[in-house]
Amino acid sequence: MAYISLDETKRGMNSLLAFRPEIAQPLTTLMQILMRNNVGLSMGERELIAAFVSSLNDCYICGSIHAEVAQCLLNADITLIQKVKDDYQKAPISNKMKTLLTLAKSVQEGGKNVTEEQVAIAKNSGSTDMEIHDTVLIASLFCMFNRYVDGLGLESNDTMETFRERGIKIAQQGYNQ
Amino acid sequence: MAYISLDETKRGMNSLLAFRPEIAQPLTTLMQILMRNNVGLSMGERELIAAFVSSLNDCYICGSIHAEVAQCLLNADITLIQKVKDDYQKAPISNKMKTLLTLAKSVQEGGKNVTEEQVAIAKNSGSTDMEIHDTVLIASLFCMFNRYVDGLGLESNDTMETFRERGIKIAQQGYNQ
Repeated sequence: MAYISLDETKRGMNSLLAFRPEIAQPLTTLMQILMRNNVGLSMGERELIAAFVSSLNDCYICGSIHAEVAQCLLNADITLIQKVKDDYQKAPISNKMKTLLTLAKSVQEGGKNVTEEQVAIAKNSGSTDMEIHDTVLIASLFCMFNRYVDGLGLESNDTMETFRERGIKIAQQGYNQ
Repeated sequence: MAYISLDETKRGMNSLLAFRPEIAQPLTTLMQILMRNNVGLSMGERELIAAFVSSLNDCYICGSIHAEVAQCLLNADITLIQKVKDDYQKAPISNKMKTLLTLAKSVQEGGKNVTEEQVAIAKNSGSTDMEIHDTVLIASLFCMFNRYVDGLGLESNDTMETFRERGIKIAQQGYNQ
């Protein structure tokens, strides 16, 4: 049971969005613009950052859903996402992506943890200002969503199968469903 | 100098909003809906939560601006905000507000730090589900903004006077300026 009365027929974030529908609109728009975009970072890379940060924040619901979206969009095996969560430095992803995940990890710990050196390394690995911006904003945004979901005590009755179904639906249709 | 090339003629968040204008719209709408609302929590109380969380996150820019907005809307002396930042349990604010700041503090530490007992205490102090929801979302939202601002290395050339001017403007006109 969540800490406040929510429509229990809706799942995860959807029950929160239904609680305060006027807030659902800008949150959904923000997700759609930031996550459903292949300019610079691909949609799959964006979802990988989201899954990674949610995992660092120990947010089971967001971590599970966005891992499914990421693996679907990256056309990857789910074990890739797990390898990134376990030790991204050793995961089979590009060096550039590793430098961006280092930024995301620092953001998760706190904005001031990002250093000039980390940004310089990301730039030297080929990241543009827009990619650095989007990485920092996605990581920050999921520090919000993870806290919103867990701070209100949301529980999940999803199974691996229903997380997968929901992830595939988001991967295919985006957030304006 | 920020970590990415921004329009340095704009201040604080405004330079970030100008970097990615399509994202500015939902972020501004979100702030306007969530912060400019006197149903349940007053606008001043919402800004007090924002200033408190920004201070816990050691975000100088957000902490300074929202402290000014809060003191203006609460018609309070700026020392009140400082007392809340220093030790909210001893600050001259309502017991209900203290229980909500306890929730905000837990959210800042991580969503899972919020406990059923903290929520029960807030409810026993007269907080509604909507007030608890808004407290958790405001605290989460500022964990995002603080990381966005500091994670991109934003610097401020504001003085106490210009922070005050900007705070008064937001207090009077809101976020859709």
